[in-house]
Amino acid sequence: MTTVFGTLDHVLLMAPGPSPVAANVLEAMSLPTLGHLDPDCIKVMDALQEQLRAVCKTRNAVTFPISGTGSAGMEACFVNLVEHGDNVLIVNNGLFCSRMVEVASRLGALVDTVECPWGAPISVDAVKKQLAQKNYKILAVVHAETSTGVNNPVAELGALVKNSDTLFLVDSVAGLGGVDVRVDEWGIDAFYSGSQKCLSTPPGLAPASFSEAAMEAMARRKTKIPNWYLDVPLIRKYWEGTPRTYHHTAPINMYYGLHQALDNLLAEGLETSFARHQAMHERLKQGMGKLGFKPYVTEGAAPQVNLFVPPEGVDANALRASLRKDHKIEVAGGLGALAGKVLRVGVMGEGAREEPIDRLVAAVAACL
Amino acid sequence: MTTVFGTLDHVLLMAPGPSPVAANVLEAMSLPTLGHLDPDCIKVMDALQEQLRAVCKTRNAVTFPISGTGSAGMEACFVNLVEHGDNVLIVNNGLFCSRMVEVASRLGALVDTVECPWGAPISVDAVKKQLAQKNYKILAVVHAETSTGVNNPVAELGALVKNSDTLFLVDSVAGLGGVDVRVDEWGIDAFYSGSQKCLSTPPGLAPASFSEAAMEAMARRKTKIPNWYLDVPLIRKYWEGTPRTYHHTAPINMYYGLHQALDNLLAEGLETSFARHQAMHERLKQGMGKLGFKPYVTEGAAPQVNLFVPPEGVDANALRASLRKDHKIEVAGGLGALAGKVLRVGVMGEGAREEPIDRLVAAVAACL
Repeated sequence: MTTVFGTLDHVLLMAPGPSPVAANVLEAMSLPTLGHLDPDCIKVMDALQEQLRAVCKTRNAVTFPISGTGSAGMEACFVNLVEHGDNVLIVNNGLFCSRMVEVASRLGALVDTVECPWGAPISVDAVKKQLAQKNYKILAVVHAETSTGVNNPVAELGALVKNSDTLFLVDSVAGLGGVDVRVDEWGIDAFYSGSQKCLSTPPGLAPASFSEAAMEAMARRKTKIPNWYLDVPLIRKYWEGTPRTYHHTAPINMYYGLHQALDNLLAEGLETSFARHQAMHERLKQGMGKLGFKPYVTEGAAPQVNLFVPPEGVDANALRASLRKDHKIEVAGGLGALAGKVLRVGVMGEGAREEPIDRLVAAVAACL
Repeated sequence: MTTVFGTLDHVLLMAPGPSPVAANVLEAMSLPTLGHLDPDCIKVMDALQEQLRAVCKTRNAVTFPISGTGSAGMEACFVNLVEHGDNVLIVNNGLFCSRMVEVASRLGALVDTVECPWGAPISVDAVKKQLAQKNYKILAVVHAETSTGVNNPVAELGALVKNSDTLFLVDSVAGLGGVDVRVDEWGIDAFYSGSQKCLSTPPGLAPASFSEAAMEAMARRKTKIPNWYLDVPLIRKYWEGTPRTYHHTAPINMYYGLHQALDNLLAEGLETSFARHQAMHERLKQGMGKLGFKPYVTEGAAPQVNLFVPPEGVDANALRASLRKDHKIEVAGGLGALAGKVLRVGVMGEGAREEPIDRLVAAVAACL
């Protein structure tokens, strides 16, 4: 018997997630485990909630990490709000929007989509028109599309349903911490992210936040939430109640990691972090540009997710393989129709720094 | 900005989960994160699958940890197998059996129960009689009831439905690694456990295994699995396919911890581990007995979950509080009707050793 640990490479993570994790976050992961009702565990949870409210710019009471990856956050938002026959409108311009359609449909939602081309910003007007056609319970959008490298105009979309009965559901798995997110100001009712992107924590948690309107919608359901594990009103009693009511066992070592990572982020300052992501995006674009790589997205490009079309004669997949094998650097390939055609490079969290970006550009140069 | 880490106690975890975690498992948690499609990540996943098959005594191809806590394992087993209107029989003699009833009902199952008193072994005859009344799609039972301290006779129950159309679903969250589990021999079709009990890994993963019959039942469904995140046939493509198909981002640092913990267990040997749990259960019972504590369960007591009735005049909750405050030891209180009446003590994984048990008994003596 023996572990495989001795055979693993230490890889520089420059795909759009998971991103590099700071040393003090990895250290925090190995702090002694605590019981799920221990007063010290509650202390960590309280601190986490305060940090998440600050990072999400919200005063929502119901703000905590879901015990699963970003996709569990998506599942949680839809399963708590959707009942059979509910009308849901999803803005579709990337892989994760399509996943939303699948998740909501499986729960019995009647899903309409506003289709927008991958890699281009969405048409707010088209969404506005569709909203006028029908009474939707939920409008859902992906803020930062990992598949296409576009940040969608969440604030403008939120304005369309503010002061209406329509709940606004936003995925910012790939955005939170790297670009601005304002849950309250943008009128977001159900929000989720992932630990492993711009928050630079290992994968396994989905920070989430729900408005009073969302909680009221859950309370008004005619049917029970068909998912006990992700039942937000029940989980809320564990995060807030006096005394705390046990729901499921807290993945406390993951909480340690996220607590340290959020501390790193808040100590730097959110605006400073956003500026750093923007500056490192420019640095990467310049470096790759000199090597003949062209940005795939020309309008509304996300600083944290960068798609590059390789110069003539360079095979994207061969380049990726060589980066991983010869330089121990991970970048991602294209998804869907973009498979084999682009490189996807993350500028996320601890990866949005000069050293890793310069190392990547130098490695790409060496591979050409 | 600062973390709360400096204010946390190092607590000896002697509740029935989470259990103490070995130093090399905590160290493994902080290994560098890997991408979810990286060849080295796949290497860890392959090793994990082999280890889990050995620990579960199964050759099931579909054997992997669900990305959530033990309760996510329960949700996964039911949501993949249950369709609206399916008949499900649940043996009910503890809190987690009741949770099964709730989970299955929310998914539209028509649930019958065989009720058995808490703390006593279940009546196999009563289950047999009920099975003769109706055609059940699933028979479900909790192997090790954390709430009552009883290990249920899973092998005998399995024999009742072997060679029938009824699928056998077993929860061994609190058993796997500490007492014998034989997924194949006992005819188990859907199985889940938790990382934080006798496997002595931090909470956050639910090892699971599905038989060919269970996978065929999923393939025969008339409706899509109403939970994308826990869709086992989709997740299977990520654990087995060539090439691997991305589903959700692997919580790789949790995998590291589980991989190391399973290596520790398999290096010791399963049978040696079971014998150690039994011996340490006796040691605890003796030590507590000398202090006037009586075992709550008299027949079919689980070695890994110990319920004690305190001697006359000793308040269980005050004792628990004092153990935590003055001795930094966690034990659990009674659940449901047993609240305030018993102590629940884990003899699980790294907690099933002389040093922690003697420390606990000495601390209890000091508190009296």
